[in-house]
Parts: sequence; structure tokens; C-alpha cells
Amino acid sequence: MTIADRWLLPDGMEEILPPKARQMEALRRRLLDLFHAWGYDMVMPPPVEFLESLLTGAGHDLELQTFKVTDQLSGRTMGVSADVTPQVARMDAHSVPRSGAARFCYCHPVLRTRADNSMGSRAPVQIGAELFGHAGVASDLEILNLMVSTLQQSGADELYLDLGHVGLYRGLVDAAGLSTEQEQQLFDAIQHKRFADIAPCVTGVESAVVREMLMALPHLSGGVEVLEQARQVLAAAPAGVREALSELTEVAHALQRCHPEITLYLDLSELRGYHYHTGMVFAAYVPGLGQALAKGGRYDEIGSVFGRARPATGFSTDLKLLAELNGYQPSMPGILAPVEALTDPDCAQEVARLRAMGERVMIALPEYRVETHQFETHRVESGQGAHQAPTYDRRLLKVEDQWQVVSAGQSTDSFSD
Amino acid sequence: MTIADRWLLPDGMEEILPPKARQMEALRRRLLDLFHAWGYDMVMPPPVEFLESLLTGAGHDLELQTFKVTDQLSGRTMGVSADVTPQVARMDAHSVPRSGAARFCYCHPVLRTRADNSMGSRAPVQIGAELFGHAGVASDLEILNLMVSTLQQSGADELYLDLGHVGLYRGLVDAAGLSTEQEQQLFDAIQHKRFADIAPCVTGVESAVVREMLMALPHLSGGVEVLEQARQVLAAAPAGVREALSELTEVAHALQRCHPEITLYLDLSELRGYHYHTGMVFAAYVPGLGQALAKGGRYDEIGSVFGRARPATGFSTDLKLLAELNGYQPSMPGILAPVEALTDPDCAQEVARLRAMGERVMIALPEYRVETHQFETHRVESGQGAHQAPTYDRRLLKVEDQWQVVSAGQSTDSFSD
Repeated sequence: MTIADRWLLPDGMEEILPPKARQMEALRRRLLDLFHAWGYDMVMPPPVEFLESLLTGAGHDLELQTFKVTDQLSGRTMGVSADVTPQVARMDAHSVPRSGAARFCYCHPVLRTRADNSMGSRAPVQIGAELFGHAGVASDLEILNLMVSTLQQSGADELYLDLGHVGLYRGLVDAAGLSTEQEQQLFDAIQHKRFADIAPCVTGVESAVVREMLMALPHLSGGVEVLEQARQVLAAAPAGVREALSELTEVAHALQRCHPEITLYLDLSELRGYHYHTGMVFAAYVPGLGQALAKGGRYDEIGSVFGRARPATGFSTDLKLLAELNGYQPSMPGILAPVEALTDPDCAQEVARLRAMGERVMIALPEYRVETHQFETHRVESGQGAHQAPTYDRRLLKVEDQWQVVSAGQSTDSFSD
Repeated sequence: MTIADRWLLPDGMEEILPPKARQMEALRRRLLDLFHAWGYDMVMPPPVEFLESLLTGAGHDLELQTFKVTDQLSGRTMGVSADVTPQVARMDAHSVPRSGAARFCYCHPVLRTRADNSMGSRAPVQIGAELFGHAGVASDLEILNLMVSTLQQSGADELYLDLGHVGLYRGLVDAAGLSTEQEQQLFDAIQHKRFADIAPCVTGVESAVVREMLMALPHLSGGVEVLEQARQVLAAAPAGVREALSELTEVAHALQRCHPEITLYLDLSELRGYHYHTGMVFAAYVPGLGQALAKGGRYDEIGSVFGRARPATGFSTDLKLLAELNGYQPSMPGILAPVEALTDPDCAQEVARLRAMGERVMIALPEYRVETHQFETHRVESGQGAHQAPTYDRRLLKVEDQWQVVSAGQSTDSFSD
């Protein structure tokens, strides 16, 4: 075991250093305050739960992404939280069973066995909001608006929003009467937009109208003009499909009115999270980022395994990703106080007063005689500016029996810090 | 698998619900701001590291407390962070190698296979501060003062502080020339204060003076007057022992001067974390809590396994424990806004303005027709007040073409929320 082996971090398990950590903390506060102002109550799920509670209804992908450990107390298998959403659903069903609309938010570090993409984190800080107990366009719109505000507050100036509705595909496939295997093939072809593979999958569909609509669906993507096109193509679709389209249209138009600065992209065959979502699905993108910045959608009935099925819609994003949208600001220099602040109540009181006023006050520790052992030469000598200790531009000094803050240049005393 | 099985949380893995979660968040902010004002830079360690990095120098107890998982990418064993201190030591040695004094703070959820005590959490939120690069009384005092401020800011009015110094026992044992087995027996007897077992352990000690001092050490505990008593008892002790006593005395006197409100308790045979600590050790208590509220001490050389041994001192506590010190305050009622806030840019803008001013504005979602399935009757009907949704005492209404906030009683409209 070499020293470098001990430095090494597992891939995708980052540490956040100064000054980035404090800036991420500032963003966390801004966003949690935003959620609060929208009426969302903060919850903190447990970092570990029994596996059955964590994986309910969430599907196979999440199971593979979840680290498992054995509970020494019960002998049961526990999972480390990889996605907060099922945990909040459990809370809505059982821990905080409110009647009517219930709004919850969270900011919670999660762990994943594998990252979503090659450059991704396996330790994102999931931050998001969930709205339970209301079905319909209004709650989807509220969550979408909150997602947009979240990203804009985080510094995402140029937002692209993908909108879809799994009810479109679901309604058509239900009407098609395909076998499970045929349905799976069609799903794969549409999800990966392999247009040539779609026709063979639907040749067995009895109704020519449904067949045509399934063939047309993957081509219905683009700006809001797609919605009018879809209204014509899907005019003869089952009622559920037309209702889904009308929901999608209502949401898109409201977003256009209230957020004209956002570029909308409609994809009527969007199947992300198909086995999980039950209505609207959406994802937000910014230029230059090779993955969605935030994702969400409707997932009614998620609470049923916990004994209380309620309509639900929500979104989530990764605080670590959001923090990358902003440059880092240098922190303000502070005040250097003499070591008497540790032993003299009078000086200690003055330092406490300055700190309470928002000043950063560091104590100048005296020289000590213990030698510092330097086993290896490494970055400390290379003087990389990124890891500079806090600086000071003023000093606290006793001038004529009074504690005073003076410019650091004014003083001729020597401090060792 | 019954529904109740899915609700059940593992023992000691708590969830934090409203309104407690927000109050814990407020305390988190207050304490991180306090650390910042003292010149401590925030770091966020990875939640998972390779086991070798996590357990360096920390001893067997931490290994048993650490959940292990296999890294699917490297095949190596990783540990979920159970104690942040070794992680911050790695950062000081490698990631943020500053010259001179380096001050770091953190607030980080950790996981433990077993709780420290029967009622304890296995998922504490460890919050603390570490000061690297300075040996001597000044840095110990700074950390002690910061610990006291942290606990007082958290609402601990009546503080009891236990102080010890492992250099006292270590110096005497070194001088005694005991075998490893004898030393272990003596250690156990002293740690558990089994006074009758001490004499047999030290009969083999050649020097009668050292023997007497080892016998006397466990009786040296109590108020600051113990220090003067110890000065006499240990007058003939090796230099290292006398130096340790003088450090302890200096720290106790400074604390008495600057924090007369604290009750000091000296225990000169305190051996908590003996294999880990190298100097001062301390713990803070409040009445009625069956465990230490915060702990800390000096642990020089901790960075040596990472290639950079530096003096180090620090403390940590559990944000969840601290949050219990305060009662919960009811949250302020908010404003109910009409659903037009989701579709009408004019109304949306007014709502945004109110929220930016610090108001909590909830949108009154319209009635919907989807039925909510209630599989089981449970707490939702029992009306336990603890889980009340946010309330409002005002409404946003359009009066004569102007958006106005009116008292909730003034309006005769009916909202469905």
C-alpha cells in the first residue's frame, strides 16, 4: 500500500474543496429557501432503508444502482438511498399523511453503484420537490414552474425544456392489442428512434388507424407547432390519448406565456421512465452539458405499495451539477486577531462582536516548536493558487487601551500566521 | 410482504419530517456561518472512499462501525464514511495542502453499522471543525472555544466540559517499563476506574515513584483544584508528563477566564480515544442527555499515512442531537394565490414578487376528478397535529384590476386547497 493508494478516490466519488464547498452551500440555501417560499416543506429521508421500501415500484434500473449492505441488528438487507423520490412517496403515504395537496422538498446526498453517464457522479446531491394529492395540469405546471425557477436561480440562463406525455404511447399501445413480446420490440424501436424497425413491429395491429398513429408518433417532435400537427394525426385516437395531448398542449401554452425565454421541445414519443411515469414527463437542458440538468414528471399511484395511492408529480436535479453553472467568487479577506483572543476575556469579547457582525476573524496562532514532518514533496510547494488559505486585510490591535481594527498595512507588529 | 413492512425503518436510521427538518436546516446554517466567521473553510468529503483511506490510523472500533460495499468499477472494497475526521486529514495532507495553520469545517451525514449507545442514531449528521498545522495550547484553546460557541449557539445553556490529556498516562506508562500485557491490563483497569485492580498491575514497576504516580492518577479528577493537587503528586514525573499537566492547566485557566459560565471537570486519567489522540481530549455534556454532546481532542500525525504528518486538533458533534436542544417553532402562515398564477404572466409576476420578498405563497390547486384510493385507514384520519400542511392567513386576489393581498377572512371566494 503506497501513500498514493490512500489518496486515491473511487471514480465518481468526488470531494468538494474550498472555495467550491461554500458556494455549493450558498446555492443549497438559495434553492431550499425558494422551495419554502413556494409552500414546499423540507423532509430529510434516512440515508439507508430496507431494500423493499427503497425499490418499490421503481424498477430494475434503480435496483442495480443501489448499494446493498446487511443490517447487523435485523439481519435484513438495506439499501443506500440512490433516489429520494420513493422515500418521499413513503413519507407522504405513511409518515406525513396530509389530506389534500402535500408539497415536499429535499436536498439529500445519494449513492449509486454506477454513474448515469461516463463523466457522471456516483455521489450526486439530489435536490428536488414533489407535489402529492393533486392530479391534473395545474400541479404539473406548478412543478414545471418551480423546476424552471430552480434552474434559473442556479444561473442557467439559456434553458431548453423537453416535454412529453407517456399517456400518448400507452393509450395507443393499449388499443393496438400487441403481445408482450411485440410490445417490447416496439418500445425499444421507438425509444431508440429506430424508425425502420417500427413498421415490422406494428404489422400485426388489427386497426389500420391505430397502426398509422403508432407509426406517426415518433415523428411528432419539435417546437410547439407539433401539437397542432398531432391534434390532426391523433384525431381518431382513443379518448385517453386525446386527453393526454390536450394536457400537454395546455402545459406547453402556459409555459410559453409565463416563460417566453425558454425554448420548448415537444417529443410525443418520449418514453423516459415509462414504467414509472404515468403522465407528463420533462427534462431541462443547458448548452454544453452532455446530460439533462433536471428531470421530472408525473408518477401517480407510487404510494400504493405503502397503502396510500395518491397522484404525484415532481422533479429533481443534482446540486453538484447546478453548482458548476456558476463561476467561483473569491471570498472576502478577513481580520487577523492577536492570540490574546483565546485568553483575555476583553479581547475575546471584541472578536465575538466582530464575528457576530459578519466579519471573518482569524486568530494569529503563535509559533510553536514542534517540527512538522514532511514525508514527501508534493503539491504544497507547487503553489497552486486554488488552495489558498483565507486571507486578511485588516488586523485587530490594542491602540491606547482600546481594541481597534486597522488596515493590515498600518501595523508594524509581526504575526506568525 | 405487508404494507407495514415497507413502512418500517431500520433501527437508528431516522427520517426527519416537517417542521423539524427546516429547523435543523436553520441550525446547520447558523453553525456553518459561525465556523466561517472563525476562518474555517468548508469541505465536503466523499460519502464513500476506499477502505484503506477511511480507516488509516483510526483503529479497530471505526472499522467495525463502517459499512463496506464493493466498488463495481475497481473491484476494491469501499467504506461508507462513519467518521469525517480521517477524511479531512487526507484533504489536509493531499487535496488542500496549505502551509501553516489550515482550518476546515464540515457538516456531513455519516453511517454506522451500530450506534454508540442503545438510543443512538446510526445516521448522525456529523458537524465539526479541524485545525491542522499548529501544535500547542493556542490551537487546542481555539478549537475548545469554537466547540463551546457551537453548542451555545445551538441552545445548550448549561454546559459541562470534561478535560483530560493522554500525555499524562502515556508518559507515566512509558516510564514504568511494563510488558504489553501488563500495560493492557492497567489500561483496562484505569479506563473503567476499577481502582482495586490497579495496584496488582503496577507491582512490577521498578520505580516506586512512578508506581505511586500511576496509582494516584485515576484519583485526580474533579474541579480545577485538581490541577494544583496534580502538580504536587506529579512533581517528580518525567518532563513530558509535567508538560502535559502544564498544558492542561493553561487551557483550564483560559477557559475559566473567558467562559466562567461553563462547569469544568478535570479527569487526569481520561483515556477516551487513547490510541488515536496525542494530547488534550475533551467532551461536552448537558444535563439530561445520556451521552456526550460533542467530543474532540488533539491527534497529531494523523496525516502521516497520507504523506504529510501535521499537528491536528478538532471537535465534532451531531447536528441531529443539537437540533433536539431546541423546541420547535410553528412556521408563519403564508398567502394563498389563485391558480391563475400558473397561466397568467401578470399574476405569476406578482406571486414571484411576493416570494422574493420572503413571503410563502401557495397556489390553490383546482379540484380534480381523479379519485384518491385509500387502501388502508391510518394516521391521516387520526388528525395528529404534528403533520399539518402549511397554513395561510392571507389571499392574493384581483381587486379592481389590481392584484392585492387581503386577509383570508375578508374574501368570500372559495379555494379548493
